[in-house]
Amino acid sequence: MKNLRGASIQYENNQLSILDQTLLPQHEQWVLCHTIDDMIHSIQRLAVRGASLIGVAASLSLAHFAEKNTDRDALRRAATALHRARPTAVKLQYCMNLMLAIIDDMTNSAAQIQSKIITLATNLFDEDVALDAGIAQYGVPLIVDGDNILTHCHTGALTGAGPGSALGIICAAHANKKIHVYVDETRPLLQGGRLTAWELGQNNIPYTLICDNMAASLMAQGKISKVLVGADRIAVNGDFANKIGTYNVAVIAKYHQIPFYVAAGWTSIDPECASGKHIPIEERNHAEVFGASGYFGQVRWAPDDAVAYNPAFDVTPADLITGWILDTGLFNQQDVLQGALRNAWLTQNEQRRVIRHSEVNGEKLCKHTQTLSKI
Amino acid sequence: MKNLRGASIQYENNQLSILDQTLLPQHEQWVLCHTIDDMIHSIQRLAVRGASLIGVAASLSLAHFAEKNTDRDALRRAATALHRARPTAVKLQYCMNLMLAIIDDMTNSAAQIQSKIITLATNLFDEDVALDAGIAQYGVPLIVDGDNILTHCHTGALTGAGPGSALGIICAAHANKKIHVYVDETRPLLQGGRLTAWELGQNNIPYTLICDNMAASLMAQGKISKVLVGADRIAVNGDFANKIGTYNVAVIAKYHQIPFYVAAGWTSIDPECASGKHIPIEERNHAEVFGASGYFGQVRWAPDDAVAYNPAFDVTPADLITGWILDTGLFNQQDVLQGALRNAWLTQNEQRRVIRHSEVNGEKLCKHTQTLSKI
Repeated sequence: MKNLRGASIQYENNQLSILDQTLLPQHEQWVLCHTIDDMIHSIQRLAVRGASLIGVAASLSLAHFAEKNTDRDALRRAATALHRARPTAVKLQYCMNLMLAIIDDMTNSAAQIQSKIITLATNLFDEDVALDAGIAQYGVPLIVDGDNILTHCHTGALTGAGPGSALGIICAAHANKKIHVYVDETRPLLQGGRLTAWELGQNNIPYTLICDNMAASLMAQGKISKVLVGADRIAVNGDFANKIGTYNVAVIAKYHQIPFYVAAGWTSIDPECASGKHIPIEERNHAEVFGASGYFGQVRWAPDDAVAYNPAFDVTPADLITGWILDTGLFNQQDVLQGALRNAWLTQNEQRRVIRHSEVNGEKLCKHTQTLSKI
Repeated sequence: MKNLRGASIQYENNQLSILDQTLLPQHEQWVLCHTIDDMIHSIQRLAVRGASLIGVAASLSLAHFAEKNTDRDALRRAATALHRARPTAVKLQYCMNLMLAIIDDMTNSAAQIQSKIITLATNLFDEDVALDAGIAQYGVPLIVDGDNILTHCHTGALTGAGPGSALGIICAAHANKKIHVYVDETRPLLQGGRLTAWELGQNNIPYTLICDNMAASLMAQGKISKVLVGADRIAVNGDFANKIGTYNVAVIAKYHQIPFYVAAGWTSIDPECASGKHIPIEERNHAEVFGASGYFGQVRWAPDDAVAYNPAFDVTPADLITGWILDTGLFNQQDVLQGALRNAWLTQNEQRRVIRHSEVNGEKLCKHTQTLSKI
């Protein structure tokens, strides 16, 4: 597999390594992922996190495995285990379903399976960069000078191969617009307080860190002009799952009549998901709510016998959303009601299918390649 | 001064001590408060916290000081400094204004000032117990079997001399009703995750600890039937200041059509405050948002160069409130529009003024004493 380098994942000289996001921003520690289990463990403990990244990382992990192992059953077991590593973000499932289609295609020889998995993994990595570029293309025009943008969780360069979705837009907009960002710390795992704050600082973008319960007060004071978040899975009716607390932000934004945008690539749409109520919500260990963890280890403030609830995501219904910023365009409620999200998925999926077929078969399809590079 | 014992403050054998709430629930450490500065420092670092407690504690601290020091100027400086220890909760100011009235009354001799301050301090302690009993009297009937009550911050026995306001109602209701409590952890200082969880556990009341950003998701699932919070200051139009995040909860409760109640004694009403916009909001050190602290010391997860916003309170407007539970009655929006809060304050203040006058002058006023004991 060719060398690949993202902000939080890299494949170099036959070694796959990930930046352990649980230790950021204080410690930048890269960790080798030798096995499928290494990657699954990294995804489950959120060392590797972000809706796009876990899809890309699982794909690279499978390709890395396929470099040395072409047994169909072993590959199927590996892809299935990766598929199940986390339940909510659909891109992981999208990527693994593509891999499983290769593995389960009985016309493929062992060598072809290996070759196609490796090609697909590298293409998914490259496509992720293109998706972010497309998201920024449609998102940046929404940002105006003087905007005070609230964002929740973390959607930057650490979450995939490219510059990110919501935070990718913010970083691109900052190049020629004067903006300021309010960063929800995003309990319990503090992706905002640790990662978004860090990436904004690295990009010299002015920001103010707040606790998740402070945004309503800022909105009442007129200090937030726009909300921009990412998505782990978007249903075709426009409902979407994202980090716990996103729905809270959407409700308070609606109350204060503040525009609320969700940004994601088309691969975050689930064409088989009619509405948000069908999105599975991962519940995580209560210990995450009992305290905090980071480079300092773990601390606990809750009583020893405490009981908690710890959903990793919530669902924001379409009627609270001002606009869906995809890599293929900006859609409003009317568009979504008319099926824009399903259509975007079907169109892009068919386009990618043709490109992939040609690539893995060594054909030259300049038209499609050009289409891809423009996105 | 006679011996007094609350859940988090005690005066025994001429020594005033406080339970350091910053170390709870893991460490129960009582600390002696020798001087006015000790008490101010304890209030400012939130070792002593809670709207009622800081008023009661400041009063006891001043009385303790007056036992050895009857210089009018020194007492005035002490009362003024305590008055200014924190700006938002009005009971502290209410108590210190009563003390300053004694100090500044030129008809009082040094011995009379001393005696009156000590009497007032012990009465304020005893009255606080009576206020909580009154709040419970009007609040408990609102709770029904099967209620899932969301509460924010901490309003229990640690916050004053009695069993508390919102949490006092919950504890009293638990005696003969089957209830469950969702506890907002209440960042940044985690009064919910540390103190409310602890007190509920001590009282064997079933609860579930959540991060502040999870309540909206629970509401959407129909899992919260009622919201009950305390208040640091209530304006006469019904707006009130309470721990940061309360306004957030009020907005999401309104969106989900869930009843939202605020519980407080009449001494939390500010008769000179026309609306919430006149309530001063304390801003605290950004370091509180950069990490967490407790018995374990301090941890920090935010980047070194982070900037934060850290208001300790927010203001919830009257139109989001279903009912105001005072020690003198339950009031709805119509009542409040008709001046019920101002009237409650004026009536109670006049009643207390007469009682205090009689008490410090050694008169017997059985009628008033009986009125007080019934509240």
